[in-house]
Amino acid sequence: MIYEMARIEVIKGKEAAFEEAVGQALPLFHRARGCKGVALHRTIEHPSHYVLLVQWENLDDHMVHFRDSEDFQGWRNLAGPFFEKPPVVTHTKIAVE
Amino acid sequence: MIYEMARIEVIKGKEAAFEEAVGQALPLFHRARGCKGVALHRTIEHPSHYVLLVQWENLDDHMVHFRDSEDFQGWRNLAGPFFEKPPVVTHTKIAVE
Repeated sequence: MIYEMARIEVIKGKEAAFEEAVGQALPLFHRARGCKGVALHRTIEHPSHYVLLVQWENLDDHMVHFRDSEDFQGWRNLAGPFFEKPPVVTHTKIAVE
Repeated sequence: MIYEMARIEVIKGKEAAFEEAVGQALPLFHRARGCKGVALHRTIEHPSHYVLLVQWENLDDHMVHFRDSEDFQGWRNLAGPFFEKPPVVTHTKIAVE
């Protein structure tokens, strides 16, 4: 299991519209191969900064199968118009818990 | 429920020692007031970069009760020697899931 952490800065004033778009896009993640969960976190200290946290079975499920899918384009079409800048995407594995 | 996301950059070469220290510090979190879970994530793209993800019942449980406790000093005594720079700490709430 790996985690995608996408740090997304949203255009100020567009937070509610962005959150609605993410809600509309959730089914695209839920039906993606290897996707085990998705949650949009909003930063308390910087309310226009978000972290999209997605659990994937492995890295390829995100970077190959999802990124090359039409559903990735659907996600970007829905949420992309509200991005202030390109998201910063990293992946993690749990090291200690 | 809120989430603490602490981005921690570790001195290169000290990753294994840092992870061992975090393992030793886990009980300090588990017994903290309002702490509902803790996991140390290691970044695949930058293996000396970590995210400590802690679930707290509310912001004060982290910023007041834990930060003012001896257990916070215990955490910093264990893990702090491996920090390359001060951690960047933010808090989030889940906006969409």
